[in-house]
Amino acid sequence: MDSIVITRDKNSPLYVQIYSYFKNAIEKGDIAEGEKLPSIRGLTKALGVSKSTVEMAYQQLCSEGYIENANRARYTVAFLDRSLLGERTKNTNLDSNQFLDPLDSLKIEYDFASGEMDPEGFNFTLWKRYVNKALAETQRLVGYGHVQGEEELREQIVQYLYQSRGVMAHSSQVIIGPGIQSLLVILCSLLKDKHSSIAFEDPGFKNGRRIFADHDFQIIPVEMGKDGIDMETLKESQADLVYVSPSHQFPTGAIMSIGKRITMLAWAEKNQGLIIEDDYDSEFRYYGRPVPALKGLDQRGSVVYLGSFSKIMPPSIRISYMVLPKQLLTLYREKATFYKQGSSTTEQLALALFMKDGQLEKQVRRLRKLYQEKRTIFFKSIKDNLGEHVILEEKESGLFTVLNVKTDLTSQELKNRALKAGCRVAAIEDYALLNHNGQVFPRLILYFSSIPKNSINEGVRLLKQAWFQ
Amino acid sequence: MDSIVITRDKNSPLYVQIYSYFKNAIEKGDIAEGEKLPSIRGLTKALGVSKSTVEMAYQQLCSEGYIENANRARYTVAFLDRSLLGERTKNTNLDSNQFLDPLDSLKIEYDFASGEMDPEGFNFTLWKRYVNKALAETQRLVGYGHVQGEEELREQIVQYLYQSRGVMAHSSQVIIGPGIQSLLVILCSLLKDKHSSIAFEDPGFKNGRRIFADHDFQIIPVEMGKDGIDMETLKESQADLVYVSPSHQFPTGAIMSIGKRITMLAWAEKNQGLIIEDDYDSEFRYYGRPVPALKGLDQRGSVVYLGSFSKIMPPSIRISYMVLPKQLLTLYREKATFYKQGSSTTEQLALALFMKDGQLEKQVRRLRKLYQEKRTIFFKSIKDNLGEHVILEEKESGLFTVLNVKTDLTSQELKNRALKAGCRVAAIEDYALLNHNGQVFPRLILYFSSIPKNSINEGVRLLKQAWFQ
Repeated sequence: MDSIVITRDKNSPLYVQIYSYFKNAIEKGDIAEGEKLPSIRGLTKALGVSKSTVEMAYQQLCSEGYIENANRARYTVAFLDRSLLGERTKNTNLDSNQFLDPLDSLKIEYDFASGEMDPEGFNFTLWKRYVNKALAETQRLVGYGHVQGEEELREQIVQYLYQSRGVMAHSSQVIIGPGIQSLLVILCSLLKDKHSSIAFEDPGFKNGRRIFADHDFQIIPVEMGKDGIDMETLKESQADLVYVSPSHQFPTGAIMSIGKRITMLAWAEKNQGLIIEDDYDSEFRYYGRPVPALKGLDQRGSVVYLGSFSKIMPPSIRISYMVLPKQLLTLYREKATFYKQGSSTTEQLALALFMKDGQLEKQVRRLRKLYQEKRTIFFKSIKDNLGEHVILEEKESGLFTVLNVKTDLTSQELKNRALKAGCRVAAIEDYALLNHNGQVFPRLILYFSSIPKNSINEGVRLLKQAWFQ
Repeated sequence: MDSIVITRDKNSPLYVQIYSYFKNAIEKGDIAEGEKLPSIRGLTKALGVSKSTVEMAYQQLCSEGYIENANRARYTVAFLDRSLLGERTKNTNLDSNQFLDPLDSLKIEYDFASGEMDPEGFNFTLWKRYVNKALAETQRLVGYGHVQGEEELREQIVQYLYQSRGVMAHSSQVIIGPGIQSLLVILCSLLKDKHSSIAFEDPGFKNGRRIFADHDFQIIPVEMGKDGIDMETLKESQADLVYVSPSHQFPTGAIMSIGKRITMLAWAEKNQGLIIEDDYDSEFRYYGRPVPALKGLDQRGSVVYLGSFSKIMPPSIRISYMVLPKQLLTLYREKATFYKQGSSTTEQLALALFMKDGQLEKQVRRLRKLYQEKRTIFFKSIKDNLGEHVILEEKESGLFTVLNVKTDLTSQELKNRALKAGCRVAAIEDYALLNHNGQVFPRLILYFSSIPKNSINEGVRLLKQAWFQ
């Protein structure tokens, strides 16, 4: 045992040094299977360490299966198929480049494809106060929290829904989650026994559609009409599940008319169908008041309502919610524990206090004002720069606009040219499954929410250069 | 139009009052389909309001589909199937009791079934400083953040894994998520094309198993041996995917021996199989050092590593992570956008700073010391109170112990009696699919992590009363 070199180094306890010595020796085959290790007493003496140090090292080796003490007398080396162990050095299996995401290196100066928030749009100093209040609730923060989300926040959401969206719900029906998409995962699980297909507005919310497809739902794309999804096609499709965004359809911006809403509810009742209402950005209507939610008309529990804070609060705060009708609530409770709550409790409690103090209303007003201003600048800039080259669809809602570009280029060519100029834009066709033949020109989606006021014009100017020069 | 009553009330803008009047009248059928609304000029005059007020009201009605202006002259009432609208009052579809979860009202004084944290176990004042530093990064917080999780945190996790778990990974392989269970949902999506069944340690992590089952994987329960999953049964099962917790099996507490680890990796290589390693509480080994992760031996990308902060940080901070081998990383990147990041960016940034400052190491040491103390108190209390009534499995790791209760009662009866006394305990059989016939006595799982030091003895005393008096 002369070769065990022990150093007095506080970063490496003595027992770890002994453990490592034997571990390496066994892995390398220097000590063979069945061979005895030195007795505890002998090694203690030889190394001049305490008995418990050696015992700890041996116990560790034993726990990890390197040695065994079958006869309780002396530890022996356990069987180990060393041929499988291989060489291990820090670099063998790590070539950092091989794991890198090529998308990470893309440089985007003006991101017209992002619905993220304007840095001016939120008062973080104020928010910090609420976060700190929430962090004082230490007793609650050491637990996992309520699986559906914190009760205070669900209560506030219920009030908000009633006052702002015309939706009546009980807090026990509200399920909080860290994003619409993670709530959809739960919904897929709740729905898949009764439903095997789902109708989607086309074009529509692509990532939602992909989650359902990924859960083996058959996707039935249904053409959009001027006032919402085409009901005739929906009826013919035989679907009994449909995903819609009635207040402000994504990405066409259409509002579903009251007549169509009623027809849709009647369709659901007749077919024992279910409507999933995605109310993602209903707060941003610049002229007039927000269009009430479809869920507000739902008498028979035919509508699952999905709401998000990601457009009115910074989206880095991951809180969305859904309101489940009773039939689904029972099933949800059976599965709740395996789809655990994912939203931070601190942020849930902070948001509840923020809402209770009336700060959310103020925040919505602040953003609406800011975005209205930016929308005006954006529209003016488009008219000034792109003028007769484009047809601008001036919707009264939302954080983006649809631009018809009069060109022979395709949507993809326009996107690529923009990208080379440092601008990212999206195209309607990216969100569609169907081939919408009616389109004369490529239709692009341009968000104005995240680009700072004084950069909007420069961004639009670059688009003009990219497309028409 | 005499019946429109307009009040000057700042909470209800004039145009909203006009809008509401017509909306109600149309819904009730007081104004029939096709009927003309008053001209804008006429109504402006009659009500003594501005022209734009009336215009806004009409535009809102028009957006929502109550009226239309087909001929651009006068607005007319649109067709509406009123029979479907029904009565809407605040109470019709809301009986609050019908939605309540019966489990919510259960009163538990001593929760031996919860692995949550001791309130003494974390310094929230210190944590608050890091959260506030993170909240200063306002530019980053207005966005969604990186879909895999913030780069700084992934870098810190890589270092932590190398130093504490013997795992070498690159930050691009690390996927952060708000809990092991939400990461498993992503994994199910990545694995289901190539795998249709998964072997699970039995007894084992129930909620993990249920997520795979919910994603239509066939579950193959494999008996646990003394040193980990039974390899013979695994080989016979034909499974090519297996879920294990080698460092500290849940709930038996077994440690997988190095021999079995090597055999398992060889099995994976031979069968092109994949091992999911759940390393949920490896930090809590009270004697000796943590057992290294299986992933540390993985040369060929056969292991998906799952780690969680929920045992070493308050679990209300929802941050877990997985390390994907290259083959799965490519597939992950294709699907990443529809399984968006769910962890709060603020908490991710705060945790990265906390780790960078060496605070996580201190926190682990603090907790290990606290839990070691509590474990001693707990074991003494069990011996004092329950003595010869039980066989205590004194494992050296983790936050719970397994108790064999010498009784004719079943596990379920023991659990129910405990519950009536205000104590919640879990049973091994709750986590098993197989019928483990070898058991002589009911085996219960008792956590000591969340019950305060000075309450432990009282809790154990109540268990004695409940079971033996």
